[in-house]
Amino acid sequence: MTADGHRALDVGDLTLVARGAAILGTGGGGDPYVGRLMAEQALRDHGPVSLVALEDVPDDATVFPVAMMGAPTVMVEKLPTSDQFVGAVRMLSTYLGRPVTHLACAEAGGINSMIPIIAAAQLGLPLVDADLMGRAFPELQMVLPTLAGIPGTPMSIADEKGNCGILQTVDNRWSERLSRVMTIEMGCSAIISNVVMDGATMRANAVGGTLGLCHRLGAAIEAARSAKRPPVEAVVRTLCGRVVLGAAKVVDVERRTSTGFARREATLVPLAAGPDTDERLVLHFQNEHLLATRHLDGDSRVEVTTPDLIIVLDAETGEPITTEGLRFGQRVSVVAAPCDERWHSPAGIELVGPRYFGYDTDPVRAVPDRELTNA
Amino acid sequence: MTADGHRALDVGDLTLVARGAAILGTGGGGDPYVGRLMAEQALRDHGPVSLVALEDVPDDATVFPVAMMGAPTVMVEKLPTSDQFVGAVRMLSTYLGRPVTHLACAEAGGINSMIPIIAAAQLGLPLVDADLMGRAFPELQMVLPTLAGIPGTPMSIADEKGNCGILQTVDNRWSERLSRVMTIEMGCSAIISNVVMDGATMRANAVGGTLGLCHRLGAAIEAARSAKRPPVEAVVRTLCGRVVLGAAKVVDVERRTSTGFARREATLVPLAAGPDTDERLVLHFQNEHLLATRHLDGDSRVEVTTPDLIIVLDAETGEPITTEGLRFGQRVSVVAAPCDERWHSPAGIELVGPRYFGYDTDPVRAVPDRELTNA
Repeated sequence: MTADGHRALDVGDLTLVARGAAILGTGGGGDPYVGRLMAEQALRDHGPVSLVALEDVPDDATVFPVAMMGAPTVMVEKLPTSDQFVGAVRMLSTYLGRPVTHLACAEAGGINSMIPIIAAAQLGLPLVDADLMGRAFPELQMVLPTLAGIPGTPMSIADEKGNCGILQTVDNRWSERLSRVMTIEMGCSAIISNVVMDGATMRANAVGGTLGLCHRLGAAIEAARSAKRPPVEAVVRTLCGRVVLGAAKVVDVERRTSTGFARREATLVPLAAGPDTDERLVLHFQNEHLLATRHLDGDSRVEVTTPDLIIVLDAETGEPITTEGLRFGQRVSVVAAPCDERWHSPAGIELVGPRYFGYDTDPVRAVPDRELTNA
Repeated sequence: MTADGHRALDVGDLTLVARGAAILGTGGGGDPYVGRLMAEQALRDHGPVSLVALEDVPDDATVFPVAMMGAPTVMVEKLPTSDQFVGAVRMLSTYLGRPVTHLACAEAGGINSMIPIIAAAQLGLPLVDADLMGRAFPELQMVLPTLAGIPGTPMSIADEKGNCGILQTVDNRWSERLSRVMTIEMGCSAIISNVVMDGATMRANAVGGTLGLCHRLGAAIEAARSAKRPPVEAVVRTLCGRVVLGAAKVVDVERRTSTGFARREATLVPLAAGPDTDERLVLHFQNEHLLATRHLDGDSRVEVTTPDLIIVLDAETGEPITTEGLRFGQRVSVVAAPCDERWHSPAGIELVGPRYFGYDTDPVRAVPDRELTNA
């Protein structure tokens, strides 16, 4: 893979892509490390995966997005098997009565950017360099095609034991509801394929260049480290975002996993804060970081919310930290970056805005830091 | 329909068939009254349903058993729509890539003997006069084909909103587990089609003549009433069973519905019991009556258990009473009757014996009352 994307993905690309995907995953989508190890093995076993740019997908292509569904805390312990990919894709092909021509990413996020690479390698299929969110979100209906009325079903679901299913639902919320209870019964993780589209529909409704952007993000961090420049700023520049909180210490993390979701908050205190300030940033996360609130001198202000990207990075190395990887004592920086603009439509905000997730606030955008992003 | 079965089912047959089915349903399978009303409407709208005797099903037939899945207490309030039958059958046909030629009953029980009649009328398909249990059981794997290793999947499931699914599972327990959580999410009732068989496999693994037997049972009660003979004895004779408890009063019913099942017990006191006896019969039921225990003078004895049939009838009229219809103060009789002999195999007892349902007892058979059944 070249830094600007498109051609083929090989083992050597995976570290950079996985790191970038974990950044776009805004803390969700599972552990990038585990996903990368699986993808490396798949590429070693089956050779490089052919990448197709979104604009090059033929009109009559049949694109199957594939993903892992479930609780990230379980995903990292219960790895998918190759039979799951085969099962999910074959069952959906059988039901549709036509073969799949391309795979794609449903979301950009740790494990879910690697899963389609693994599936493409194992099934010998080309992978579209695109995803359906431009970030990670926790529920199946939260894809851009939903905004255009594109059905998420028929979808398939497969567990590691050999159980598979097809769902055909009245809307994309119902595909989420039914596959969620199935995923929980299957042991809290499953492989799914949903939102099947032809090439023309895919081009109009996906976010192009996701894997290329992931690669550039991973490479930007690498380059900054080599040049002894701050990796966090390299991420901000690549995503045209801003730093919400510079180096800070995680002083509290509350978390639990219930009905397939991790829901909680983390409290961060700036390292630079003296003893005479009570400044802190509270990150509200479920599978992904959804809201960042700054508390200072008795006031609190929402700094940025979903659908824009809230990204937690190791303050020193720039490595992305997933919501389930957050630990007391970590030194982190918090970055915000704009999401795909379609998410800021009224329908987009209704689908993935802060109120959907139970936070009583209007969306707050990630305003780019001109100084950094124009540099 | 003639009293000995086979030819066609018309509106006039339904009262008798529904009553007989509720008897074989041993308290489970939903309310026969609601099912009958729906079936009457379907036969009025679409004409009689053609009945095919089990032995006449062609080898190359494709038989789809259909049933309602869920909690009986919900089934009686949330009626299935015709779209559900069409959805479940069409989706399964599409997935299998071949058309259904016959429908069949999965179980003999109140609503689930009527559901296939409704589906057959609406879809214009012949109905095999057979079922897969010879009675009602609460879980999907509890069908005779499971004992022969016949897969219950691919199966389909459809709700009244238009959501459908296909399951392909590693065994019949998993088809139960996954469709159960889907049914609960769908609102605690759904239409399913599972254990698809060709004609030859169906003939070897189903219980033949179910609807004919239901009709005879219903007719026997009618005839007894006309002749002023005890209807309960007519049921015992038709099923070669015995009376476990003659006229008795329901003095206690404990019941709750959780995760799709009704689980509880009822206490019955013989009407003939004087003030100097503490005799009582305790019925343990979930969706169906599973165990009857007699308590007398400080002793208790298991009278009969699953897989044999435990049937509660109105002591006066012989009308079957479902587990959810049991009420304090009712005058009832309890009848036991032998199940299909295949259920008494070791594998059968493992699948549907008392221990599976959590009762720590060996199975106790329903020994026929020679005096009554030879009469």
